[in-house]
Amino acid sequence: MLTYSFDHIGKASMYEHLYSCIKNDIGSGVLHAGEKLPSKRSLAANLGISTVTVENAYNQLISEGYVCTIPKKGYFVADIPRKSDRSKAIPAPEIRLPAPKKQYEIDLSGNQISSENFPFTVWARLMRETISDRSEELMQAAPGGGILLLRQAIAEHLHAFRGMNVDPAQILIGAGTEYLYGMLVQLFGKDKIYCVENPGYQKITQIYRCNEAECRFAGMDEQGLSVASLRQTDADIVHISPTHHFPTGITMPIGRRYELLAWANEREGRYIIEDDYDSEFRLDGRPIPALQSIDVSEKVIYMNTFSKSLASTMRIGYMVLPPHLVNRFYEKMSFYACTVSNFEQYTLAEFMRRGYFEKHINRMRLFYAKARSRVLSCIRSCPLAPFCEIEEKDSGLHFLLRLHTELEDQTICRNLEEKGIHFAALSEYDQEGKAADRHVFLLSYSHIDLEKLPYALETIKSLLEQGAKS
Amino acid sequence: MLTYSFDHIGKASMYEHLYSCIKNDIGSGVLHAGEKLPSKRSLAANLGISTVTVENAYNQLISEGYVCTIPKKGYFVADIPRKSDRSKAIPAPEIRLPAPKKQYEIDLSGNQISSENFPFTVWARLMRETISDRSEELMQAAPGGGILLLRQAIAEHLHAFRGMNVDPAQILIGAGTEYLYGMLVQLFGKDKIYCVENPGYQKITQIYRCNEAECRFAGMDEQGLSVASLRQTDADIVHISPTHHFPTGITMPIGRRYELLAWANEREGRYIIEDDYDSEFRLDGRPIPALQSIDVSEKVIYMNTFSKSLASTMRIGYMVLPPHLVNRFYEKMSFYACTVSNFEQYTLAEFMRRGYFEKHINRMRLFYAKARSRVLSCIRSCPLAPFCEIEEKDSGLHFLLRLHTELEDQTICRNLEEKGIHFAALSEYDQEGKAADRHVFLLSYSHIDLEKLPYALETIKSLLEQGAKS
Repeated sequence: MLTYSFDHIGKASMYEHLYSCIKNDIGSGVLHAGEKLPSKRSLAANLGISTVTVENAYNQLISEGYVCTIPKKGYFVADIPRKSDRSKAIPAPEIRLPAPKKQYEIDLSGNQISSENFPFTVWARLMRETISDRSEELMQAAPGGGILLLRQAIAEHLHAFRGMNVDPAQILIGAGTEYLYGMLVQLFGKDKIYCVENPGYQKITQIYRCNEAECRFAGMDEQGLSVASLRQTDADIVHISPTHHFPTGITMPIGRRYELLAWANEREGRYIIEDDYDSEFRLDGRPIPALQSIDVSEKVIYMNTFSKSLASTMRIGYMVLPPHLVNRFYEKMSFYACTVSNFEQYTLAEFMRRGYFEKHINRMRLFYAKARSRVLSCIRSCPLAPFCEIEEKDSGLHFLLRLHTELEDQTICRNLEEKGIHFAALSEYDQEGKAADRHVFLLSYSHIDLEKLPYALETIKSLLEQGAKS
Repeated sequence: MLTYSFDHIGKASMYEHLYSCIKNDIGSGVLHAGEKLPSKRSLAANLGISTVTVENAYNQLISEGYVCTIPKKGYFVADIPRKSDRSKAIPAPEIRLPAPKKQYEIDLSGNQISSENFPFTVWARLMRETISDRSEELMQAAPGGGILLLRQAIAEHLHAFRGMNVDPAQILIGAGTEYLYGMLVQLFGKDKIYCVENPGYQKITQIYRCNEAECRFAGMDEQGLSVASLRQTDADIVHISPTHHFPTGITMPIGRRYELLAWANEREGRYIIEDDYDSEFRLDGRPIPALQSIDVSEKVIYMNTFSKSLASTMRIGYMVLPPHLVNRFYEKMSFYACTVSNFEQYTLAEFMRRGYFEKHINRMRLFYAKARSRVLSCIRSCPLAPFCEIEEKDSGLHFLLRLHTELEDQTICRNLEEKGIHFAALSEYDQEGKAADRHVFLLSYSHIDLEKLPYALETIKSLLEQGAKS
């Protein structure tokens, strides 16, 4: 008969202790496979504990497979592989975390937005209201495309700000545009050829490739993506940011837009993904009409995000599919749950409905216009002024600075980096990594330290002078 | 000279109005491609407006490509395709939204959880604290795997509740497990063969297939997934829920777990995805140790979610990768941003750190245990009792009801549906759609209306009696 001591069992309950004792005896081989265990009643009597305690321990052992029960015969030790049967352990390699993002003393080319501008007070209040007023809706599964209230608010925003006429049903909300790109690959399939702009935002290429979709590059001219170059790629789907191309800042003129639409119309299955990521921040003149709004053939997928206009850390993006693609999406992929929390969807919906989003954008436009004008006047009045030209300053949150120098782009970047200054060259954004030096650099003013800017510009100037001498 | 009226221009500014007038004239052909526009000064004089207004309008037209400027020559109408050049519009098909989820009078097999149990008050308070105390962190990009504080809290939870020893760096947080399955396909590649349980949760199959990964089925026996059946699929990666299989409720015994680990160890590139989606709700005895915790060869990817334990509408899931896969993830996919909002990550981290999550789970366990016992006693004392048996009731939020009947499963489901009662048969979950009738049904008590249960059971009994007579 099994005999275990129940003294000093610490915090474990009686049944847990008994369960552990028997399990250990099975694991170590004291109890053999096939061996019959005492009945509940007799073990309880032997140990001076209640039958229920033994029953609980036996049940736990049964549910874990250590013990099996044969009706009317009793309890038996199961035939489980012993510890020595386990495959030999491979020593765990160390975890190599990705290198943390470099921190610079001065970042002239960062893409962060200013955190102090997020409307924390209003957001906290709306979140609280959402939680107290909508407890039931908060717990109900949202439709796959997102909650209707938010989609309606987005449709209204697109109408007011972009002149787009969109049915809320065409809008799909997702946890950031990165996620939505992946959804599009699932919608279209991996046998399609995707084309992105070169130079361009490399992450888009990485995402298509990580989804095992073929991704090719088309070159740019002064009007944006070259349609001739696009044709050479034999692409089905082209991914562009016509309002404000990153990194060149080019706004695609209307003629080129129609040329692109014509390309898409030439063959079935051709589509244009219009990535409108920072259209809210066109600072001069009226915003350019979206490609989506001049598309009459259901060829354009419009995509935008709240990353630039509100906070990138909230991970809310959306896309507007043409009607036949919405239908295809719902037929093929409606089993997916929406990836954004109901809590934040409702809060954002109220934020938009009550006019806070519009106010916030207007405030941020002023803030960025001021930052831009201070940066521009700082450049124009500094010793670097004769050695540089400012380009593409009408839209988005950065412009370009062309330096009059013979120094290689890499040399300039590396030299400045050693002095704690981040200054990105346009040539870094060549997707094939073989761009010639362009002597053009990105100056981003969305989160720039104006106090330190004169020092940075002075440093660049000294570098150019040394370069000229050597 | 262009002449436009500036009366009745409504809310538009002067320059916007001028811009629209010229744009319309270009669009309609009144102004021809190549036509020279008046100088800013002369147009301003002609219209009696300021030069700046004309300049703004011209700039807008230039940035949109309607007008081009030739240095020292002036402004010219650009050569853009006219409206008539556009491809013929395809009439927009109607948007067909997916059918809304069916609403039933009585849902015996729903998978919703009770909304009234969500800790709204605590959550609202922690969210408010997060917003006021962490404004800076909230705006900083989280690491790809999620914020460290939350990963630490999850690691501690896994240690306390599941006996797992996990480095927070092994944990990757994502917007729901559906999203994480997709990430795994990207990590492993689509050339791998995935295997899921049959019967099983069909959505998992849909997700693998939507990602264009090959997905096959292995059968179950009374210990869970059959390893013999798994071998026949030639799979590389098997996706299982050993703690509590859906829909059968089977808990995989320890012997079968070791058998599966042995299968994975036989060949490089074989892995087990352990989907532990409702392990918090084992109601009898101690929780079964996770497969992950007995894996010494880095073969198990552990996956869990807060959908069952907190709220499915928050979309927070996580996975624990073995160290060598974490490294592969960071090498290949570290460009992805974490898909969960910082606001909710920090709030959830505090919710866990301060013990609220543990309290909530304990409260919910009691709540569900009570619901289960009321449902069980209701069944045992109702007229249906002699015609049914209760199975697999130890874990998760549902058990099985075996009906003594010759009626087809489909007949029973359809008949009850007509009476407003949802009662799902186990055979519905056959992934190949060819299961024989099993006369076994799912009874879920996570969100059941106890008042209406007796009526539903009575209705089932009448149906069986009619079936026996006919």
